[in-house]
Amino acid sequence: MALIVKKFGGSSVANAERVFNVANIITKDYAKGNDVIVVVSAQGDTTDDLIEKAKEINPNGCSKREMDVLLNAGEQISIALLAMAIEKLGYPVISLLGWQAGFNTDSHHGIARIKNINTERMKAELDKKKIIIVAGFQGISKYDNLTTLGRGGSDTSAVAIAATMNAQKCQIYTDVDGVYTADPRKVKSAQKLDEITYDEMLELATLGAQVLNNRSVEMAKKHNVELEVLSSLEEKPGTIVKEKVKMEKTLIRGVAKDTDVAAISVIGLNNNPGIAFKLFNALAQKNISIDMILQSVGRDGTKDITFTVNRPFANEAIEAIKLFSDNLEFSDIKCDSDVAKVSIVGAGMESHPGVAAKMFEALFDSNINLRMISTSEIKISVLIDENYADKAVTAIHDAFFN
Amino acid sequence: MALIVKKFGGSSVANAERVFNVANIITKDYAKGNDVIVVVSAQGDTTDDLIEKAKEINPNGCSKREMDVLLNAGEQISIALLAMAIEKLGYPVISLLGWQAGFNTDSHHGIARIKNINTERMKAELDKKKIIIVAGFQGISKYDNLTTLGRGGSDTSAVAIAATMNAQKCQIYTDVDGVYTADPRKVKSAQKLDEITYDEMLELATLGAQVLNNRSVEMAKKHNVELEVLSSLEEKPGTIVKEKVKMEKTLIRGVAKDTDVAAISVIGLNNNPGIAFKLFNALAQKNISIDMILQSVGRDGTKDITFTVNRPFANEAIEAIKLFSDNLEFSDIKCDSDVAKVSIVGAGMESHPGVAAKMFEALFDSNINLRMISTSEIKISVLIDENYADKAVTAIHDAFFN
Repeated sequence: MALIVKKFGGSSVANAERVFNVANIITKDYAKGNDVIVVVSAQGDTTDDLIEKAKEINPNGCSKREMDVLLNAGEQISIALLAMAIEKLGYPVISLLGWQAGFNTDSHHGIARIKNINTERMKAELDKKKIIIVAGFQGISKYDNLTTLGRGGSDTSAVAIAATMNAQKCQIYTDVDGVYTADPRKVKSAQKLDEITYDEMLELATLGAQVLNNRSVEMAKKHNVELEVLSSLEEKPGTIVKEKVKMEKTLIRGVAKDTDVAAISVIGLNNNPGIAFKLFNALAQKNISIDMILQSVGRDGTKDITFTVNRPFANEAIEAIKLFSDNLEFSDIKCDSDVAKVSIVGAGMESHPGVAAKMFEALFDSNINLRMISTSEIKISVLIDENYADKAVTAIHDAFFN
Repeated sequence: MALIVKKFGGSSVANAERVFNVANIITKDYAKGNDVIVVVSAQGDTTDDLIEKAKEINPNGCSKREMDVLLNAGEQISIALLAMAIEKLGYPVISLLGWQAGFNTDSHHGIARIKNINTERMKAELDKKKIIIVAGFQGISKYDNLTTLGRGGSDTSAVAIAATMNAQKCQIYTDVDGVYTADPRKVKSAQKLDEITYDEMLELATLGAQVLNNRSVEMAKKHNVELEVLSSLEEKPGTIVKEKVKMEKTLIRGVAKDTDVAAISVIGLNNNPGIAFKLFNALAQKNISIDMILQSVGRDGTKDITFTVNRPFANEAIEAIKLFSDNLEFSDIKCDSDVAKVSIVGAGMESHPGVAAKMFEALFDSNINLRMISTSEIKISVLIDENYADKAVTAIHDAFFN
């Protein structure tokens, strides 16, 4: 008898047939004697349809408070339908909205953070032997206003319940059957991983692998919640995400690409101390995150600094720097959006100095030029032309996994 | 400075254009310095669409608790959109779900009764000078489960707020511009009434005029809330519903038909005392309401009893009587569904004995046979063949209003 938390995304409950498919997965585990709490997202395109309705009213953006009221309706519909399907199968079940499940958040509408979960109601329903269906993505502020947790919020809801309720595991059901060494739609030789560490998963998530939302992995790591990523369409084991995994033959765990990147170069900065601080402070004040950084000193004694940001923030970053140009002398500023970041991730690479060489050799053999390089203990990223991103991923993947 | 409660039905907010039309009506009254609380139903066909989704999951009927969770989403969407439209017009506004507005109900899912309204939040928002948009039809039980108030529930929500908050008036906006002496789509000479009493409105609502929901009129009468039925499409005065109205020239206030009727005849009952009691007790135990009753004694000393019920309950009523047939001897039971009830309503008829004669004369002139008659202080109803219902309404209306 264990508590299992399961999370199903919007495509898994997109229509009545899929809802029953999910209901069968849930009741099978319940019938084995487990307690089951399920977190579910809004059906298929519901959230997009609701956003469209809001845009018809105000194309310039409605207030986030009312947007949260509107979007909460999406998950409300899916929990009711899933609970109805489980009732039809003859099992005891109850649906709970975010606030009913005790999700207390701050008041940052649209991107609220969970402050705590009051587990009283969920515990009472488990005591009554009910399967619990919780609306993901939802919370409530201390002023009794509905909130939402932002993108990927349902993953976060599921991990938060697993952590707070001490679940044995948290299963994230998707339309792929696990975490792969590369995107299986692009790289034929991509292999499914049996296990991966939180840190590796975090790097992969950050680097563009869209299986799990970053915040949920961070939370799982912090509370040591064992995650499993698996398919809602085929019944087979997925990928386990946990603190330590047994070493495998391969040195790296995966190859990922991120094309949502822009490189900004500030050229001809005078070479005084504190110049980098001033530059990045200007960006920090606008809440713009930077990723890779390259600094070079030219022969005339001026500096060039190139850095990458998420592509949608590129213009804002340039504006922020120009605003500070009184304090910051430079001759030119350039933005390059046709770039991609390709990365390898693996806890094993630290102790194997040949990993970077092998990656660069694969790129060299494919005639791909490296514009920037950045490394951490468990990853190496390179910035290349966007056109070559898929070719680079395949070349690197083949070098390590063939 | 007065508090005005306004209620808009689903067709009034069916799309973005209509939402802005409603937003304009609301902000116009607010701009005059009034406090405004608005109750709104689910958009257009939303509720039907949600019911359809539930039927796909379980055609035999889902649990009422989960049905309430599902249906609550409809009003949630419309309050958010209406609030967004009012924001866009530049006015301060907040949407509140039923539970946020303080609607505490009993636990009868699908047909919950309001126990009380905790007005704390609404008062706080009015103090902040906000227009309040409340989701009609919704409540919450003491177990923190969402409930719905049943058919016409948004009218009830609006009147309940008006009563509890001591509003100056409660305006019910519909797609007709008031209460008419007969259905204006069917009877050309139908006239709009300036005023009508609660009792008359109650009779008309019960008798098939679908302008106002019965429960909301009862509540308005009990708390002496002045109602106004008016159009959301044209700006002009509607019909005022209140305790006493000035007498008009006409003796009756309106003619209505109800085709949702079946007549059941129990034939050849032995003529013992208590036989009617036994019969109607059998129906009461199944919670079946009866309306008109006719008892006749035949030459052989047996009794026939004919009564009317709402058509959807006819089969259930027959089953209930057959179940009691051990205690209740009779020779036959018949059901006639091709009947309609046509009624006239008016507080003036009590003191004018000629009213019934005038009604029956009009029916006689049209060759329409009366099967049953029932009367109260302010109404006379006759049961006729359903085929003649519209003809009867027109004939009676012309007799009194031309």
